[in-house]
Amino acid sequence: MSRPVQAVIICIGDELLSGNTLDTNSHYIANELRGIGIETKQIYTISDEAEIIEKTLKESLSLADIIISTGGLGPTKDDKTLEAYSRFFNRKLVFNDEVFAQLKIFLEKRGRAEILDLNRNQAMVLEGAEVLKNEHGTAPCQLIDDNDKLIFCLPGVPFEVKPLIKEKIIPLLKSRFGLHSILTAVVSVVGIPESALSHKIEDWETHLPKSLSLSYLPVGNRIKLRITAKGSTEIELQKQLKIEIQKLKSLLGTSIISEANDRIQDIVKDLLISRKMTISTAESCTGGAISKLLTSVSGSSAYFAGGVCTYSPEMKAKILGVAPSIIEKHTVVSAEVSQAMAKGCQQLFGTDISVSTTGVAGPNTDQYNNSIGLVYYSVRIGEKESTHKLFLPHLEREDFINFVSEKVLQTVVEEVLKS
Amino acid sequence: MSRPVQAVIICIGDELLSGNTLDTNSHYIANELRGIGIETKQIYTISDEAEIIEKTLKESLSLADIIISTGGLGPTKDDKTLEAYSRFFNRKLVFNDEVFAQLKIFLEKRGRAEILDLNRNQAMVLEGAEVLKNEHGTAPCQLIDDNDKLIFCLPGVPFEVKPLIKEKIIPLLKSRFGLHSILTAVVSVVGIPESALSHKIEDWETHLPKSLSLSYLPVGNRIKLRITAKGSTEIELQKQLKIEIQKLKSLLGTSIISEANDRIQDIVKDLLISRKMTISTAESCTGGAISKLLTSVSGSSAYFAGGVCTYSPEMKAKILGVAPSIIEKHTVVSAEVSQAMAKGCQQLFGTDISVSTTGVAGPNTDQYNNSIGLVYYSVRIGEKESTHKLFLPHLEREDFINFVSEKVLQTVVEEVLKS
Repeated sequence: MSRPVQAVIICIGDELLSGNTLDTNSHYIANELRGIGIETKQIYTISDEAEIIEKTLKESLSLADIIISTGGLGPTKDDKTLEAYSRFFNRKLVFNDEVFAQLKIFLEKRGRAEILDLNRNQAMVLEGAEVLKNEHGTAPCQLIDDNDKLIFCLPGVPFEVKPLIKEKIIPLLKSRFGLHSILTAVVSVVGIPESALSHKIEDWETHLPKSLSLSYLPVGNRIKLRITAKGSTEIELQKQLKIEIQKLKSLLGTSIISEANDRIQDIVKDLLISRKMTISTAESCTGGAISKLLTSVSGSSAYFAGGVCTYSPEMKAKILGVAPSIIEKHTVVSAEVSQAMAKGCQQLFGTDISVSTTGVAGPNTDQYNNSIGLVYYSVRIGEKESTHKLFLPHLEREDFINFVSEKVLQTVVEEVLKS
Repeated sequence: MSRPVQAVIICIGDELLSGNTLDTNSHYIANELRGIGIETKQIYTISDEAEIIEKTLKESLSLADIIISTGGLGPTKDDKTLEAYSRFFNRKLVFNDEVFAQLKIFLEKRGRAEILDLNRNQAMVLEGAEVLKNEHGTAPCQLIDDNDKLIFCLPGVPFEVKPLIKEKIIPLLKSRFGLHSILTAVVSVVGIPESALSHKIEDWETHLPKSLSLSYLPVGNRIKLRITAKGSTEIELQKQLKIEIQKLKSLLGTSIISEANDRIQDIVKDLLISRKMTISTAESCTGGAISKLLTSVSGSSAYFAGGVCTYSPEMKAKILGVAPSIIEKHTVVSAEVSQAMAKGCQQLFGTDISVSTTGVAGPNTDQYNNSIGLVYYSVRIGEKESTHKLFLPHLEREDFINFVSEKVLQTVVEEVLKS
C-alpha cells in the first residue's frame, strides 16, 4: 500500500465540550493505531446531537479508511449515538438476544438482578453490524463494514475502551490490512533549547534516509526526538535507526540522557536496574507526586524502596530527623532543609539514592512568607549530594507539582550518569 | 442575546494525532469558557498542515462566534499555523519590532543572548492583528477581528496557554460580549447505578425550571449530577438551585455525599476542615497517589499531616510497625496488613484519620502470587476502622492506581459522614 492506512477518531459527549471531562480515549487510541502504522488524520470532539454526529460521520468517511467513535452509548436519554448511526447508515436497530443475555449476566454479577427497561436499549444492534463483546461494561462495540470502510462504535468509559482497542480492534485491523508494528526510537536531549538543537542537527535531519522521519517533542526541560521508521523490512529499519542514533550521539554528546525510552520514569527504571541502585523519596511540596511517578512503572519495586511525604515541619523532624534548629534558622523552604531531608530519607530507607523537595506550590504562600513557586530539591547518591533551586511562579499548583517531579527525576538521571 | 455565544477550539499539532502528547488545553479552555456562559460547539484536533488548518478555520467560522486555536507557533519548520492564517485571512505577516524586543528580553533572561534567526519568525504578526503578550514563552497570542468573529491564535504549551486564557482572553470576552459568570452545582451520588438513578429522579428532572439543566457524569463509583443555571438574574438562579437541590436530597437521602464540590479531594477538604479533623496516608500499591491527590488541593496542609509509601515489606515493618509475622502469615496483600498499616500510620502522624492500601497493581503479580487487581484498603477514624477489598483485574496499572485512590477518599467521606 503506497499511503498509510488512515483513521479518524470521533469523541462524542457533551461532558467533553463543557470542559468537565478530560478526553483521554483519543490519545490512547491514536497511540495504539500508530503502533501498527495507522495514521490518525483528525480527531473530532462533538456534542451528543444526532445531526452533528451524522455530519461528522460524513466528513470522516471522506477523510479516512477507519472511523472509531467513542461515547454516547449509555442507557439514558441524552445518549444519541446509535440513533445517529442508524439514520446515517440507513440500518435498523434490532434487539439482539445474545447481547441482552450478556448484559443480564454482567448486571447480575454486580448484584443488579432486576434489569431496568433503560438497559434494554443497550442490547439494540445496528442491522448487519458485527458485535465485539465488551467484557467490562453494558454497551458492546459495534463494527460496520460500509463500502470497505470500517466504522467502530465504542462506549466512552476509558477502562472499557482500552481493552476493546487493545484486545479486539488492533488485532482485527492488523489482520484486515496486513499491517506490521512499526519502529520508533525516542532520544531524550537536555540542556539545549529547541531552536539551537534544530540548528545543530539540521544537516543530519536533511540527510535522514527516506524511511525515517523525525519529530520534536519538548517536555519540561527535556526535548524528545522521536525517530519513526517504516517502509522496508524490520531488520533493515533497525540497522538504519542504530546508525542514525550513533550519528546523533556524535553531534550531541552528553546532552543525550536516553536513547531508548520515552518517559522519564522509564529512563530512571532502565538506569537504576542496569546499575543495581535503589532510590527513596522525601517529599514536601510535591506531596507524593515523585513517588507516584516512580511507581507508575511496572516493576518499580526492584529499585524503589519507598517514600515519605512530610507535609508539616514536625514530621520532617520526627520521621526524617531534620533538626528543628535548621528549620528555624533557614525556614522550611531552604537548601539546608532540603539537604537534611534527603540525608534522613537515605538513612531511613537505606537506599543508594534519595531525593527531596521543599517549596511553595501555591496559590497561597507558606507560614514563612516564602515566594510562591520557590522550590529546593536535593539528589543524594551515596555520600555525594547536589541541591537545586527553582523558581516557577507562572505555574498553577498541579502543573508546578508535575514539573518539579519530572525535573527531579531528570536530575537523578543526569547525576547517576555523572557518578 | 437569545442563543449563547459559541466557540470552536482547534488544537494543532502532529504530536496530538500521533498519540504522543495528551491534549489538555482544550479541556482547560472549554471549562473556562463555560464559566462565563460560552458554549464550546466543537473541538478539532488537526495536523500541522497549512491546507488542513485553512479548511478547519473555514468550517469553524461557519459554526461559532469565537475561534481559539492552540499550537503550531514554534520556531521550527514543522510549525505552519501562521502561514495558514496568513493565507486564509489574506493578511501579510509583518515583522513586529515590539514583539521582537520582548522576545529578546525573554530569551536574555534565560541566558540566551544570541537570538537565533529561527526565533525571528516568532516576531512575525498578522497584519491588523492585536497582540496579546505571552509572559511565559516566545510566541505571543494574536487576535483577529474578522467580520465580527474573534479568532485567537495561541501557542500550544499548556503553561503558556493557561495564563493567556485566564488573564487576557476571558476578561476580553466578558467585556466584549457583556457576559456574566454562570452558576453550576455538582451533587455527588454514590451507591446507585446510573440507570436506576435516572429512573429515580426522572420525574424531578422533567419538571426542572427552564433556566436549569442537568447532566450525568459518572466518575468511578460516584455519579456527579451537574446542574447548570443560566438565563435570569443571579439571585433568582441561586434560589432555584437551592430549591432543586433540596428536592433531590429528599429523593436520594444519604446517597448524596456532597452537594457543592466536584472533585473528591475537594469534598474531603471541605469535610475535614469543617470537622477540624486531620488525615495521613500509608500507601503500598497506590504508590503515593492518594497523597498526591490530597495535596493537589490548595490549603491541604491544614488537614493533611503527611504520608508514607512503604513499597517493600521491610519498610512496612520498620516505619509503620507492621509485625513481620502478620506479613508472613497473611502475605503482604491482606486485610490484616492493611489494618496494621493504617494503625501504624495513625500513630506515626498522630492524625484523627489514617488510610492504607496494599494490593497488586500489575501487570505482574507479586512475590506471593496474589492476583493482579486485588487490593485491600483501610480507613481508620479514631479507634474505629473499616477494611475493604476490591478486585479490579480489568484496569491497567495507572487506571488501577487512580481508581483505588479515588475510591479510598470516597470511603473516607462516607465513613466520616457516618461517624
